[in-house]
Amino acid sequence: MYRTHNCGELRAEHLGQNIKLCGWVQLKRDKGGMIWIDLRDRYGITQLAFEKTQISKELLEKVNNIHREYVLQVDGEVIERFSKNDKIPTGDIEIKVKDIEILNTSETPPFTIIDDTDGGDELRMKYRYLDIRREPVKNALILRHKIAQKTRQYLDNKDFIEVETPFLIKSTPEGARDFVVPSRMNPGEFYALPQSPQTFKQLLMISGIDKYFQIVKCFRDEDLRADRQPEFTQIDCEMSFVDKQDILDEFEGLIKYLFKSVKEIEIKGRFPVMSYNEAMEKYGCDKPDIRFGMTITDISEIAKSKDFMVFNKAEYIGAICVKSEEEFTRKQIDAYTDFVKTPQVGAQGMVFCKYNSDGSLKSSVDKFFTQDDLKIWAEQINASPGDLILILAGEKYNTLNALSELRLKLANDLNLKPTGTFAPLWVVDFPLLEWDEETKRFYAKHHPFTMPYEEDIKYFDTDASKIRAKAYDLVINGVEIGGGSIRIYNKELQEKMFKNLGFTKEEAEAQFGFLMNAFKYGAPPHGGIALGFDRLCALFGGSESIRDYIAFPKNNAGRDIMIDSPSKISKEQLKELGLKI
Amino acid sequence: MYRTHNCGELRAEHLGQNIKLCGWVQLKRDKGGMIWIDLRDRYGITQLAFEKTQISKELLEKVNNIHREYVLQVDGEVIERFSKNDKIPTGDIEIKVKDIEILNTSETPPFTIIDDTDGGDELRMKYRYLDIRREPVKNALILRHKIAQKTRQYLDNKDFIEVETPFLIKSTPEGARDFVVPSRMNPGEFYALPQSPQTFKQLLMISGIDKYFQIVKCFRDEDLRADRQPEFTQIDCEMSFVDKQDILDEFEGLIKYLFKSVKEIEIKGRFPVMSYNEAMEKYGCDKPDIRFGMTITDISEIAKSKDFMVFNKAEYIGAICVKSEEEFTRKQIDAYTDFVKTPQVGAQGMVFCKYNSDGSLKSSVDKFFTQDDLKIWAEQINASPGDLILILAGEKYNTLNALSELRLKLANDLNLKPTGTFAPLWVVDFPLLEWDEETKRFYAKHHPFTMPYEEDIKYFDTDASKIRAKAYDLVINGVEIGGGSIRIYNKELQEKMFKNLGFTKEEAEAQFGFLMNAFKYGAPPHGGIALGFDRLCALFGGSESIRDYIAFPKNNAGRDIMIDSPSKISKEQLKELGLKI
Repeated sequence: MYRTHNCGELRAEHLGQNIKLCGWVQLKRDKGGMIWIDLRDRYGITQLAFEKTQISKELLEKVNNIHREYVLQVDGEVIERFSKNDKIPTGDIEIKVKDIEILNTSETPPFTIIDDTDGGDELRMKYRYLDIRREPVKNALILRHKIAQKTRQYLDNKDFIEVETPFLIKSTPEGARDFVVPSRMNPGEFYALPQSPQTFKQLLMISGIDKYFQIVKCFRDEDLRADRQPEFTQIDCEMSFVDKQDILDEFEGLIKYLFKSVKEIEIKGRFPVMSYNEAMEKYGCDKPDIRFGMTITDISEIAKSKDFMVFNKAEYIGAICVKSEEEFTRKQIDAYTDFVKTPQVGAQGMVFCKYNSDGSLKSSVDKFFTQDDLKIWAEQINASPGDLILILAGEKYNTLNALSELRLKLANDLNLKPTGTFAPLWVVDFPLLEWDEETKRFYAKHHPFTMPYEEDIKYFDTDASKIRAKAYDLVINGVEIGGGSIRIYNKELQEKMFKNLGFTKEEAEAQFGFLMNAFKYGAPPHGGIALGFDRLCALFGGSESIRDYIAFPKNNAGRDIMIDSPSKISKEQLKELGLKI
Repeated sequence: MYRTHNCGELRAEHLGQNIKLCGWVQLKRDKGGMIWIDLRDRYGITQLAFEKTQISKELLEKVNNIHREYVLQVDGEVIERFSKNDKIPTGDIEIKVKDIEILNTSETPPFTIIDDTDGGDELRMKYRYLDIRREPVKNALILRHKIAQKTRQYLDNKDFIEVETPFLIKSTPEGARDFVVPSRMNPGEFYALPQSPQTFKQLLMISGIDKYFQIVKCFRDEDLRADRQPEFTQIDCEMSFVDKQDILDEFEGLIKYLFKSVKEIEIKGRFPVMSYNEAMEKYGCDKPDIRFGMTITDISEIAKSKDFMVFNKAEYIGAICVKSEEEFTRKQIDAYTDFVKTPQVGAQGMVFCKYNSDGSLKSSVDKFFTQDDLKIWAEQINASPGDLILILAGEKYNTLNALSELRLKLANDLNLKPTGTFAPLWVVDFPLLEWDEETKRFYAKHHPFTMPYEEDIKYFDTDASKIRAKAYDLVINGVEIGGGSIRIYNKELQEKMFKNLGFTKEEAEAQFGFLMNAFKYGAPPHGGIALGFDRLCALFGGSESIRDYIAFPKNNAGRDIMIDSPSKISKEQLKELGLKI
């Protein structure tokens, strides 16, 4: 037996016991007559003590040869520490070492294994196995494990069955790009890796499985933006004989349970529900952070009366009211103007209006608007003396988007986002279809299997953009944690949907024939949700980046730089697959 | 809300309650004044009753239009059944239906949804979503879910952390063939799908994760034999600071826990441990079924004395002693001779020797051997009057293999395998390396990371085939459920191993450089195991085939015939990937 205890569990109650520990050398300190070693494993750190005059020459020689990250097996007695360390749970004791075996040596690592030294992103990724030795990364993986276990417990208790769906499936051009896998046994043919188990979970509902879940890897061959991974993990769920409210109830329960059991946070009351339209009008985006206000007000009606052409030409004029202890300087306001004009935000300019504490108003468009005009704005916006009103104008959705960005930037700058609080929100009633000007066709906003509201089906032949979907997103602190929908379960409606998405009958048949076929044999009403597991873990861990919650992530070029992959394969492999580069 | 209860939960205690149920029509019976419908969902069957003269014309018309597998929502009252059915848990009650909504219709399914009608393998696979509606398949998936949950609970309680390792990794020529995934962002380069997370779990040990597990999909592009799948699932585990015995202890505990918690079977005592050599000598194979005896006896020494050239030329002569109530006829014995001569078994012929109840012996080689000779055999074999001795001779391992096949065939024919009992066994001390005559090189019996016994390392330079590995297989009822080993954790030994496997330094570096590099920074002693999850589920379910324990399996050509995959991909996709067929 290599060890009797781990490095995190010895306490005063173990004093006098003979124990064995294994671990890595975190630190060695040589102070006159004493040498101390901090021995580290997954569970903690225990201090080893060597009194030079008391130990054998052989042991002293061994100790002298020990360096950082050496792997040791230690035999010794638990003794009381002379100066206790209340910062670590083992701080009351240390080990009077009788013998040491050096299980392995270590070269000097490329970065020190401590919380705040990581050598930068490239080095961390290349030596990920050393990076994981660092507390924050190790703890992120343990947190992930815990959330996964608790998720399974909750869903298992609710009679959900975890069913593994296949990874080698079929490529479908709809949606994002597939990773494909050439088939050697079927030359010239390919499998595809699933972007999600969507069609399989629907088939499971047709199978009568009733309540399905899976924590499952999904794959998307996208040009990677920051913090996207080509492989990512979903909590994927589907239920039969449910409508929208049943799904919201069930998964609100899951999220509350996770907060309670993993973070000991009680989220009280029902999650608020907001329509897509309201989210867009009030927050300028479909995943609003509702931890703070500063919502958007539409002042198009009242701001167009005068000669200010920028407003008059604009489809939409929107304002936010900034409340701040300290008055904004002109320089600060100019910085926000610069911010909204960056290409990522894309506004043409910004109008401001200061509500002075004496009740007067001072705006950047004073030559067009009177004090009375500005008063009307301030009233509409619910501004008070001391507030700053910021106004953007232009095409409606671009302007709302820019106002959203501005709102979030201000919240960061003014520290309006309380840390440690979590504000979940359901966003519902998304449009079913989105028109794309470039390709002149509709795309499914969620996916082609989403059920429209019964009363909106009539718009299919008149104004399809009006159709609302029975779709819902779960947003927490402005982060989209997941989404789902009630699905179409009727062959005719599904055919109508494919037609509206520009599929010919043959294309629909070739790609989704098996699903359409399954619909013939008694498909139940059903719906589901998928939660982004990496993102959920990062949220729980208090991080904005998902990378540290993935054991072996890829970089922005989709490379694993530790194993140097992707890489060339041999000519024989290519030949067997019948492929040429 | 679609339903108040499911179709499996209503009992006498619910009498008089108004309820709502949803489900599929299992059966409709029209008997004079009454119509009954069996309504089925995942949880059971509930009988619906319609008294023709008591229900509205509209409802009667609806009911008349209902056929098998229609999806219904039913509103009604729980009433007592006139003739109770004690075969189903809901057999005391039925539903007096007030209203029905037909949620979906169904065409007549290609096979009837009952336990023993499945329409044959092809049809089942094509309509897998209907096949899963059948009790045996549905229950197989529920069993699988349960085993997975219990596995996770056990390992979580033991401080194992489930860590997800990547699916897009790097191709390595060692071992089975990889599935590869072309990278669009890195043209001409490929990822590979993992055959197992082997190197990643070893890196996690170097990371200090200490106790890792994962229930994970693995991929092998092999020519599929019966009951192999290109994607399969493993319970994959690894531990640090352990030796062989620690691993056996931990996973014996898991298996016992699974039997207890899933099947309510208590497996008492420790699992027996048998060396590879003993397994080969006694059972002729490395995964013996020890539920029954009929072990092999080596009679090479005593059977070579006479003029029978077949024996004299043979490297090895082995015998098994068949005990049977009824005497074997000559015709039966001839059938076994034919069996051992089939190409799959590969023996040249079979010698038999009947131990008659009068104490005399009658053999097929009487002209070469006296009664005294045969008596000596019988003694060595521990045969008694009434037994039949069957003898094969030839090259040692081929003959042992043929004896093993013969033993298993006899056990089937004589019903020697008790059903419902489970006999686990650890097979240990496998040879580290296997010599391949064709390529004139050694291959790793387990894999290249397996630790040899310290005392055998000296044979590397003299007779490498003598080296025993710290490897172990878990065998239950003659089925290999899993295997693993203690790993090499020292760079020099790993290099020696690669060299013995014929890797040049450059090849080893190119393929496993990241692992060799990681070994420089303090790798702990570690080892692990991987259990075949599909196989474990089939064993628990009492089936020899893994297919029904996989929701959407592929056929022997690696095709999913339900979704028709693999399939052609578009020219645009190929072009983006920089590939030609």
